[in-house]
Amino acid sequence: MRKIAATALLAVAFAPLAPHAEEGMWTFNNFPKQKVEAAYGVKITDAWLDHVRLSSARLAQGCSASFVSPDGLVMTNHHCVEACLEQLSTAKRNYIADGFSAKSPADEQRCPVLEVNQLVEITDVTARVKKATAGLDGQKFADAQKAETGRIEKECQTSAALRCNVVSLYHGGIYDLYKYRRYQDVRIVFAPEFAIAFFGGDPDNFTFPRYDLDVSFVRVYEDGKPLKAANFLRWNKAGPKDGQLVFVSGHPGGTERQLTVAELEYQRDVALPERIARYAELRGALVEFQHRGAEQKRVSEGTLFGIENSLKALKGRREALVDKSFFADKVAAEEAFRKTLASSPREGPAALKAYGSIQGANDLLRNVRFEVRNVMGSDGFMTDYFSIARTLVRGAEERTKPNEARLREYQEAQLPAVTHRLFSPAPIYPDFETFKLAWSLTKMREDLGPDHPFVKKVLGSDSPSDVAQRLVRGTKLGDVSQRKALWEGGKAAVDASSDPMIALARQVDPDSRAVRRMYEDQIESVETKGSEAIAQARFALEGTSSYPDATFTLRLTYGTVKGWTEGKKEVPAFTTLAGAFERNTGRDPFALPKSWIDAKPRLDLATPFDFVATTDIIGGNSGSPVINQDGEAVGLVFDGNIWSLGGDYGFDPKLNRTVAVDTAALTEALSKIYGAKRVLGELVAGDGKK
Amino acid sequence: MRKIAATALLAVAFAPLAPHAEEGMWTFNNFPKQKVEAAYGVKITDAWLDHVRLSSARLAQGCSASFVSPDGLVMTNHHCVEACLEQLSTAKRNYIADGFSAKSPADEQRCPVLEVNQLVEITDVTARVKKATAGLDGQKFADAQKAETGRIEKECQTSAALRCNVVSLYHGGIYDLYKYRRYQDVRIVFAPEFAIAFFGGDPDNFTFPRYDLDVSFVRVYEDGKPLKAANFLRWNKAGPKDGQLVFVSGHPGGTERQLTVAELEYQRDVALPERIARYAELRGALVEFQHRGAEQKRVSEGTLFGIENSLKALKGRREALVDKSFFADKVAAEEAFRKTLASSPREGPAALKAYGSIQGANDLLRNVRFEVRNVMGSDGFMTDYFSIARTLVRGAEERTKPNEARLREYQEAQLPAVTHRLFSPAPIYPDFETFKLAWSLTKMREDLGPDHPFVKKVLGSDSPSDVAQRLVRGTKLGDVSQRKALWEGGKAAVDASSDPMIALARQVDPDSRAVRRMYEDQIESVETKGSEAIAQARFALEGTSSYPDATFTLRLTYGTVKGWTEGKKEVPAFTTLAGAFERNTGRDPFALPKSWIDAKPRLDLATPFDFVATTDIIGGNSGSPVINQDGEAVGLVFDGNIWSLGGDYGFDPKLNRTVAVDTAALTEALSKIYGAKRVLGELVAGDGKK
Repeated sequence: MRKIAATALLAVAFAPLAPHAEEGMWTFNNFPKQKVEAAYGVKITDAWLDHVRLSSARLAQGCSASFVSPDGLVMTNHHCVEACLEQLSTAKRNYIADGFSAKSPADEQRCPVLEVNQLVEITDVTARVKKATAGLDGQKFADAQKAETGRIEKECQTSAALRCNVVSLYHGGIYDLYKYRRYQDVRIVFAPEFAIAFFGGDPDNFTFPRYDLDVSFVRVYEDGKPLKAANFLRWNKAGPKDGQLVFVSGHPGGTERQLTVAELEYQRDVALPERIARYAELRGALVEFQHRGAEQKRVSEGTLFGIENSLKALKGRREALVDKSFFADKVAAEEAFRKTLASSPREGPAALKAYGSIQGANDLLRNVRFEVRNVMGSDGFMTDYFSIARTLVRGAEERTKPNEARLREYQEAQLPAVTHRLFSPAPIYPDFETFKLAWSLTKMREDLGPDHPFVKKVLGSDSPSDVAQRLVRGTKLGDVSQRKALWEGGKAAVDASSDPMIALARQVDPDSRAVRRMYEDQIESVETKGSEAIAQARFALEGTSSYPDATFTLRLTYGTVKGWTEGKKEVPAFTTLAGAFERNTGRDPFALPKSWIDAKPRLDLATPFDFVATTDIIGGNSGSPVINQDGEAVGLVFDGNIWSLGGDYGFDPKLNRTVAVDTAALTEALSKIYGAKRVLGELVAGDGKK
Repeated sequence: MRKIAATALLAVAFAPLAPHAEEGMWTFNNFPKQKVEAAYGVKITDAWLDHVRLSSARLAQGCSASFVSPDGLVMTNHHCVEACLEQLSTAKRNYIADGFSAKSPADEQRCPVLEVNQLVEITDVTARVKKATAGLDGQKFADAQKAETGRIEKECQTSAALRCNVVSLYHGGIYDLYKYRRYQDVRIVFAPEFAIAFFGGDPDNFTFPRYDLDVSFVRVYEDGKPLKAANFLRWNKAGPKDGQLVFVSGHPGGTERQLTVAELEYQRDVALPERIARYAELRGALVEFQHRGAEQKRVSEGTLFGIENSLKALKGRREALVDKSFFADKVAAEEAFRKTLASSPREGPAALKAYGSIQGANDLLRNVRFEVRNVMGSDGFMTDYFSIARTLVRGAEERTKPNEARLREYQEAQLPAVTHRLFSPAPIYPDFETFKLAWSLTKMREDLGPDHPFVKKVLGSDSPSDVAQRLVRGTKLGDVSQRKALWEGGKAAVDASSDPMIALARQVDPDSRAVRRMYEDQIESVETKGSEAIAQARFALEGTSSYPDATFTLRLTYGTVKGWTEGKKEVPAFTTLAGAFERNTGRDPFALPKSWIDAKPRLDLATPFDFVATTDIIGGNSGSPVINQDGEAVGLVFDGNIWSLGGDYGFDPKLNRTVAVDTAALTEALSKIYGAKRVLGELVAGDGKK
C-alpha cells in the first residue's frame, strides 16, 4: 500500500462524524485517553504520547516511519524506499531484485530524494487565519488565506532544518501550525529482496492472509554523522498477541469521510472512474514497455508498482461508493444534519447555504475538469523533465515577488523541499521519459480533443510521439548542474534558456496560471469556505469530541489484534513463516527468493509473519509502527485488507483491517536469513527489557 | 463506429417508451407511415418498404450494408470489412495501409469469414413461444423457451442457405421469426486506404465535422457467380440536401432504453466502469505491443481499432448515465409507470412483482459477475484458439443430443454459421495469440483472485505467461484441416485429442456449464420473464404504437439532414473535400494518403464529403445506406456524433446525429482519386434517372 497522491481534484471535504467503536485517526493533542482507559483499563499519559510522537517520523514523499534506535535508525516499508533503491541501482547492480545490506557504516548510501520529518510542535493558529479571511470570497479569500499562512510559516521557519506547515483540520474548523524537524541526509541501511517485500505481488496486494517482509531500515544523518535520537521505539522481538491492544502512529494521507453527497457523487461518477481508466491504460502500456528489455523493466519497476497499487486502491474506493446501502447511509446522514441545521436559526443558514455553493462549485468542476487536469495540472506532461522545467520557470517568476503574493508552493517555507527535489542526483532515463511523455500527450489530446487551442499550442501539427522525442532529445535538464545554474540564475537565466523543455514550460505557463486562477476563485475557495461554514455549525451543534479527516498530519489510532469473519470463513489474525513456503510456487509473484529457500532449515517456521488489527489507517500510513501499551514496536504496518480501501469514506469495524509485519518475523529474518547482525544488534540493544 | 458486441451482461431490458419527434428504430412491419406523411407530406408505400428491406443487408459479424447493383455489389463501411482486409494481407501486401481495388472480376478475393444476410420474411410466433413457457420459472422456463425457439428455427431452416432466428421484440412482448437468405461467398471489390477511411483516427471518432471515406464494396457470389440481385438501391450521385428527409435502413445492435432503474444502476456502477477499465488496460498493452515491430502492428491493427472504438463508445454511454438530470428522468419515468401499475388491478400486480424479481436477479449478478465473465464466459481466454477449441468440444458434446436439448448456439439452425467461422482460413498469428492469452489470464487471476479454484485449475503453479506460451506453442488448431477432422470426428475424436488447447477447453467445460446453468436459472430467465411481464402490462395500458429496443434486427429510422447548435457554436450539416486538405497535418492520424495529395488538382474541392442527419441509429448501423424518399442511396452511415453514444439509453433530437459519407464524395473519389471505373460504372448504370 502506498499513499495515494491526494490531488486537488480528489481532496475536498468537510466536518466530523460520530465515530464507531475503535474508529478514529486522532490528532496527538486530542487523543481520547479516557475512552481507551474505559475500554481497556490502560492509562495513556501525556509522556507516553510525547514519546510516541517524537519517535514517529514522516517521509516527505508520502509514507510513515519510526525511529528504532538511539543512532537514528528508522524503520519503514520497503515500498517506501523503493524509489531510492531504484535510483541507486544501475544496469549492473540491482538493489530492488537483490536487496541491500550495509555491512559497515561506510556502506550506508545516501538516498537522492528521501526527506525525513519529525513533528516537534503543534500550535493552534485558527484565530489568526480566520481573521485574515473574514468577510472575503473567491480569489480574495484564497489570496488572503495564502498570504496569512505564508506569513505564519515563514515566521516559524527560522532555518532550513525546520519544516513548517499550516494545516487545516476538520475542513477549516481548526488551523494548526505543524513544526517538523527536517532531515535531508538519509541513507539506506537494509532492504530485503523485492520478491519477499512484495510476495504475492499485485494479486495479493490489499489482501490477507499475507506473507510479506515489507521492511527497510534507513538512517538519519546530521552533519555527516548518525543522528543521536533522544526518542525511539524499543524493539519487542516477541511481537503482539491475538486480542492485544495496539496503537498505530503515522501519517494517513487523506480521507474523505466528511464529503457532501454532491462531492461523493462526483467521486463516484467522475473522478474515480476516469482516474481508474487512465491508470488502467497506463498499466497496460507499462507492462508491455517492460517487455522491451531488462533495463526498461528495471527503470520502470517503481512506476509500475505505484500505478498498480493506486489502481487497486482506487477500485476499492469506487466499490465502496457503488455499494448501495453505503451510499444510502451517506445520503441519510446528510439529510438528517440538514434537518438539524434547518431548525438552528443561528448556525443553520450559513451552513445550508454552503451546501448549495459546494454543489455549484462541483457542477462547475465537472465542466472544466479536463482543463484543470491538463492545463492547470500536468497530466499531459508525464515526465520528470517537465516537472523540473515547470519548477524552474515558476520558481524564477515567483521568487521575484514578495513571499505572501507567491504561489503557495514557492513561498519561503517551501523552498528547502523544492530545491531538495530539484537538485536530486537521482538518474533520469531518457527512453522511459519519452515513453511516458508521448503517452500522456496522447491522453491530453484525447481529454481536450485535437482542436483545443492548448493542444494545438503544444503539438502543432506534430504527433505526440514526435513532440516527446524532440523534447527529450533536446533537453539538458537531466544534468543537475544545469538545473542549479538556472535556479540560481533566476528569471533572466530562465528567460534566456533555449532548452526545449524550459521553452515548453514557459509557453504553457500563462494558460496554466489562468486556469488555476479560475479554479482557485470559483471552485477551491468556494469549497474551502463552504466546508468551513459546515464545520463551524457542526462544532457548535455537536462539539469537537471527534477526529478530523486525515490530511497527512500525524495521527494515532488504537485497536486490537484481531482476525475477521467473511461469510462462514474465519480469517485468523496471524500467518506464519511456514505459510510463505506453502504459498511459494517458484514463479513470480509467488516465488520466494533464494535466500529464503536456503535458510529454510534454520528457520523457526512457526514464527508469526504478518498479522491484522482493527486500527483505523489509510494510504500514507505505510511504514507506521504498531506499538504496544508500553510504547514498544511490535509490528510494521504495510497494507490494509480489501475493506480498508472503503476507509476513505467510512470505517467498518467488522471488516476493515490493518495489515502489518510482526517484529518476531523481522527478528527471525534479520538474524537467520540475512545475517544482518549490525541492524539487529542495534534494535535489540534498544530492547531494554528483553 | 462499430457494433459493440451485446454481451449477456450488457443486454437485458424491457418495454417501449413514447418516442420524441423523430426518434425511433422501427421494425419494417410497424413503420409509422402516417406519421411521416403528416410531418413531411411524403407517402411511404408497402412496395417502397419491401424494396428498401430487400435492398438492405446484414453482415453477420455485426454491421449493416446494402445492395447497390444488379450484380450483387454490396456497399458497407471500410471498418466493417477491415478484418477481411487484415486476413487477406500478408507481411508483404498490406491491404489495410494501401487499400484494395479489384481491376477485374478475377481479382475479387473471397473474405474468409464474411457472411451477408438478407431479410426475406418476418412471421409472428409470439403465441407459440408463450404457450411453450406458460406457467414455468427459472431453468424450466429457459429450457422450454430454448426448445420451442429451436423447433421453430429448425422447421424454418430448410437449407443451409437460410438463416432463421426467433427474435424477441419489446423485451418479450413479441416474438418474431426472422428468415434471412444467407450468403457465405463474399468477395472484396474495393476499399480505400485506412488513412482516409479512418482519417482523424481515434481522436476524431464519434465527432463531427468529419472527413472520412469509410467505405468498401464487396460482392455476393452464388454458385461461384455474382449474385443477380432483384432488389438494390439506385445510386444518387448528387447526395442529399440540407433539410432533406432521409431514411436509414440497418441493423442497430442493441439499445437499452427500457432498462429498469436497477439495471441502469448496474450499468452505471458496475458493468460500464469495469468494462471501460478492462478495455483501457488492453488498449495500453496493444499500443505498446505494436512497438515490437511492423508485423506485430499489422496483425493487431484491427483488434486495436475495435477496442478503441468500443472504449470510446462505452465512455460515451457512461457519460449519459452519470448525467444527473438524465438519470433523474429515468427514475421519474419508472416511478410514474409504477404508480400507474399500482392503480391497475388487472395488469399491475404481475408487473410490479417483476420489478422486484429483476432487482433480485441483478443483485445476484453483482455477486457472481466475475464467475459469469470468466468461468461461464471466456474473458480469461482471449485467443482465437480457445474459441475454436470450445466450439469443437461443445459442438461434439451437443451434437450427440436432440436438437431442442442443445445449448442454443449449437442447435441445427445455428450450425452453418458455426462451421463457417470454424473452418475459416483466416490466418492466426501465434505471437499475438500468446500476447492476448497471457494478458487475459492475468486479468482472470485478478478478477477471481489467485486462490479461486478455477484459477488454480487453469494456472496450477505456472504464471499466466508460462501457460499462454505452452498452450499456443502446443496447439495445432491453427490448421483448418485439424479443425475439420475434429469436428467431423465428433465426440470420440475430441475426447481422444491430445491438443493442449482442446484439453483446456475439455477441462474447464464442466465449470463453465455449471455457472451458465446457474446464470440461466437465477438471472437470465428471471430477467426475461420479468421484462415480459412489464412489457405485457405496458402493451395493455399504453398500446403498441411505439418501437422496440434494438436487437440487431432490421430497422428503419427517418429524419432530416441537419446540423446542430452547441452553446453558441453552429455545427453545419456538411463538410467538403476541401476541409480534409485543411485538416491534413501529414502526421498519423491526420495524414491524407498519397493518392489524395496527388489527386488534389483534379478534384472539385467543393464536393460535400460527410454529413449529419437526425436519424436514430446506434452501433450495428455502421454500413447502413442513407436513402431518399425515392428509395435511392444518398449516403453511407459510418458513425454517430458524441451525443449519439447516449442513444443506448435515450434519444436527444437536439444533439444526437448520425454521421455519413455523401454519395457525391464517393462518386468523386471513385472516379478521380481511385480510377475505380468498374465499380463506378456499375453504380451509375444502376442510376436510372441521372
